[in-house]
Amino acid sequence: MKILITGAAGFIGDKLARELLRRGRLDGRNIERLLLADLRPPAADLLTDPRAAAFTGDLLQLAQLLPDHALDGVFHLASAVSAECERDFDLGLSANLDSTRALLDALRRAGTRPRLVFSSSVAVFGADPALPLPAVIDDRTLPAPQTSYGVQKFICEQLVADYSRKAYIDGRSVRLMTVAVRPGRPNGAASGFLSAIIREPLAGQPAICPVPPETRVALASPANTVAGLIAAFEASHADFGGRTALNLPALSLRVGELLDALEQEAGATARRLVRFEPDAAIQAIVAGWPADVDGARAARLGLRPDPDAQALIRQYRQHTSR
Amino acid sequence: MKILITGAAGFIGDKLARELLRRGRLDGRNIERLLLADLRPPAADLLTDPRAAAFTGDLLQLAQLLPDHALDGVFHLASAVSAECERDFDLGLSANLDSTRALLDALRRAGTRPRLVFSSSVAVFGADPALPLPAVIDDRTLPAPQTSYGVQKFICEQLVADYSRKAYIDGRSVRLMTVAVRPGRPNGAASGFLSAIIREPLAGQPAICPVPPETRVALASPANTVAGLIAAFEASHADFGGRTALNLPALSLRVGELLDALEQEAGATARRLVRFEPDAAIQAIVAGWPADVDGARAARLGLRPDPDAQALIRQYRQHTSR
Repeated sequence: MKILITGAAGFIGDKLARELLRRGRLDGRNIERLLLADLRPPAADLLTDPRAAAFTGDLLQLAQLLPDHALDGVFHLASAVSAECERDFDLGLSANLDSTRALLDALRRAGTRPRLVFSSSVAVFGADPALPLPAVIDDRTLPAPQTSYGVQKFICEQLVADYSRKAYIDGRSVRLMTVAVRPGRPNGAASGFLSAIIREPLAGQPAICPVPPETRVALASPANTVAGLIAAFEASHADFGGRTALNLPALSLRVGELLDALEQEAGATARRLVRFEPDAAIQAIVAGWPADVDGARAARLGLRPDPDAQALIRQYRQHTSR
Repeated sequence: MKILITGAAGFIGDKLARELLRRGRLDGRNIERLLLADLRPPAADLLTDPRAAAFTGDLLQLAQLLPDHALDGVFHLASAVSAECERDFDLGLSANLDSTRALLDALRRAGTRPRLVFSSSVAVFGADPALPLPAVIDDRTLPAPQTSYGVQKFICEQLVADYSRKAYIDGRSVRLMTVAVRPGRPNGAASGFLSAIIREPLAGQPAICPVPPETRVALASPANTVAGLIAAFEASHADFGGRTALNLPALSLRVGELLDALEQEAGATARRLVRFEPDAAIQAIVAGWPADVDGARAARLGLRPDPDAQALIRQYRQHTSR
């Protein structure tokens, strides 16, 4: 089968591409071709695999070429992130909404009715001033996004559902939790500190935590996130359960627990490298995100949260030591 | 103040224009100018009022001219209706989604931060195969639209909320119930029969009812609908209650009760003009719409459902006898 990953040069896109090439199969069929679409080229080593091909450029333009490719499946991960969408309203609309619509229209024109997994985000949830979030969110909780990024993700969920209802695609939207621990530099997401406060101290570098230690967050490791994307692709319609978006499983913990785990894994010196420096803007965004997510629907696809904070840190260390 | 109505040649747009001109004031200020935008010109008699002006053309084009007008308020009613959006997917996206975005972007560019009431619809609700509707819906019920029209209305609610959060406009979305009794000919909406089964027999004409008499529906009279639009415009932020859409109040009844009322108002002969002729497509759409709507939030704006089916019929007869 022929698969497209958009956002393939991003952290999760790269991980997903490697996992698909490692498996070689998806939904019981061999992967013959893996198109890696992004603004920048994918990691060079990925392209040494004869099944992989780079598809580099703006998705708005790339989409025009898609009808030439008889795609069997798409993982649509490409996105501008939350902080940049808050800074640049037009960028968010273009990169998140217009690009997704161009992709969906191109797939519709191609007529191959590919299966599509759309990576939405837990950031669709936010606390509307008059509509506080319930203590635990589930797949029936009404999103009231409080960022443009969340609004655009939620809008794209609706488009994916309607293009699927019309049988132009076979789409499934999954909401990714905050992924930790991410390598590299912060990417402009308001949640970036949740990786930085682990990653930087492990490298002997100081890090700033903009929220108090009692702040509760919902996290998932990169490997668990990739597993969720693949499970959504392979799920039967009955198991996936309707066209509304599915919340991927989340490990709920306090930021302080994450630092406890850092101390257990890397010692008190590492923990002391984290300085608390409140940032009201980031606190407000993070406070609006749900910290507890009902995992019943995800469990039907065999998906479980990561076991604990230490598991998140160990997965990161294994990744960086390779 | 200067007010724009989009969809001003439509039934509700026309009613709203007349009511605004009659009141002369909105939110405590005089209405100096009322721009009546639509694909076709407004009713000729409306334009004899010196405050009224026609603004005729495609909203996608008209929006380009809006920054020249320093608008204080907008009622955005223009829309392609449900049945035409099901027939023509591209028309729905263009007329409902693209036009709304062009309008919002034009208002943003104009920089006057007008108040805007967006007429969404109870059609945002539908029964996802895996997510049945609760018996009574309220403003926290997750919409899972089952028509492109419903999807597009729900997406526009999200855009209105985000443009408002960014303070580009001061937007409020209200979900209109099925309006009955509408005059004239059916307009392509799946709900059209709910007016036709009253309107046609009152005129001595036969009518077809495509759903069984026990089908429950949520209705509102034209006058009550217009009152809801104006109340949403005039509400304080606190009274409106957040940026999520508000369900306007609905009279819940069975189609059979509507026919009972027809018989009471116009006799058994009128009722016998209604023939039941099941239409599976319309039944499926209507069955997905909620029949019971919690009116608590609307009640805080002083809005109440119409009292009974006879009141709907009497309002129509008063309208047509003028």
